[in-house]
Amino acid sequence: MKSSKLFGLHSVQAALDYSPKKIHKAWVDSSRQDKRLTQAVEDLLALGIEPEKVDRKKLDRLADGSNHQGIVIEVEMPGELSESELKTAVENLSETQTALFLVLDNVQDPHNFGACLRTADATGVQGVIITKDNATGITPTVCKVASGAAETVPVYQVTNLARTLRWLKGEGLWIMGAAGETAQTVYSADFTVPMALVIGAEGKGLRRLTKEQCDVLVSLPMLGQVESLNLSVATGVLLYEAVRQRSLAAK
Amino acid sequence: MKSSKLFGLHSVQAALDYSPKKIHKAWVDSSRQDKRLTQAVEDLLALGIEPEKVDRKKLDRLADGSNHQGIVIEVEMPGELSESELKTAVENLSETQTALFLVLDNVQDPHNFGACLRTADATGVQGVIITKDNATGITPTVCKVASGAAETVPVYQVTNLARTLRWLKGEGLWIMGAAGETAQTVYSADFTVPMALVIGAEGKGLRRLTKEQCDVLVSLPMLGQVESLNLSVATGVLLYEAVRQRSLAAK
Repeated sequence: MKSSKLFGLHSVQAALDYSPKKIHKAWVDSSRQDKRLTQAVEDLLALGIEPEKVDRKKLDRLADGSNHQGIVIEVEMPGELSESELKTAVENLSETQTALFLVLDNVQDPHNFGACLRTADATGVQGVIITKDNATGITPTVCKVASGAAETVPVYQVTNLARTLRWLKGEGLWIMGAAGETAQTVYSADFTVPMALVIGAEGKGLRRLTKEQCDVLVSLPMLGQVESLNLSVATGVLLYEAVRQRSLAAK
Repeated sequence: MKSSKLFGLHSVQAALDYSPKKIHKAWVDSSRQDKRLTQAVEDLLALGIEPEKVDRKKLDRLADGSNHQGIVIEVEMPGELSESELKTAVENLSETQTALFLVLDNVQDPHNFGACLRTADATGVQGVIITKDNATGITPTVCKVASGAAETVPVYQVTNLARTLRWLKGEGLWIMGAAGETAQTVYSADFTVPMALVIGAEGKGLRRLTKEQCDVLVSLPMLGQVESLNLSVATGVLLYEAVRQRSLAAK
């Protein structure tokens, strides 16, 4: 767990809904009185947390200049793990475990990230690897959407994804990239091998340097007119294809 | 296409983002001046639509008593089709088409509905059947999330879902219900037959009367600790299982 500052009514509401017990402290703008802010303050008081009334300048500092809508809270959340922890986890996989990692390359939408964590838990993924820059980390919104999976699935945050993928290859994992433009569908790929499934950002796909590290690129059949699926839906279909193939192989 | 009244800043923003050309008319509360409302009015003016300034009471009437946040617009959207149009569509399926319908039983979240439409397009679903009460219809948020699929996939709205499912059975379709609590996973079910896949509401599952009409109940393996998947993710995995099985059967 780590302590983080959160700001803005939406994030605060997500923390109140999802992890009220994890909120340690709150600061509110003493000069503001709008309805949603008043409601948030009442909810905090009901939890026994008395928000400190401060001036706008102090809130601006606490929120690092971001739009805080008059409220900042400090909350404890599952922390992202490091690259060295990822290495330990991969090296310590037991002989009966076939590696299945999910890699999200610069995924930014907390709803997509949360839904992917939920599916990762359900499909037995051993860890989710995310990028440090241009990506969402674990936030209360992510936790809420993940329905508990942010606490059960290890999330590793890495600085240089291409380097991490190269290292995973050296450890014997196949790097399988999802790429809508490729002709090979997932149904002709072998997902029973130790692997990391790599998903690109919403609307952008895999970055060039990420794609270059992939051993295999796979797509899903698109039988209609839309060009792509929702990111968390595509991730779900691909991870469940690994579950299906592996359950057959185990028979 | 049908004309609908929409209200609230979020819905209006979705319409401005997704289908600005479909907005015909707008009414705003002459006494309100908050920032988001002012921005919405500016966006409307940029489209050549001058919002009519009215008093709050008139807006309350236009929004049928719902919380309109000071703005109501009239917008043209893809319309839901009727039960008789569903019957015509099913009866007119060509001999080479194996029926694949998606049924959403009281699904309420517009993001889930939109993502399901997007997947329905991609998997060649011939129509999506939704319920009239306690469910979301086609809204600008749905259209935005569906990324074009609200215009390509026919959506049929029915009053009595159990009756519709009974009728579909009479037409030779298998009714396949998704039920997390059932032991049979989708991988042992035959999805190559003419069928309707029925998905229950978020957190509630299938209603009793809906479930009684199902010929087969299927689940997805859940290998971790979370109890269920996001609704649109589960729908995606199940619809793609039909695509997979049918592509194999066609070989």
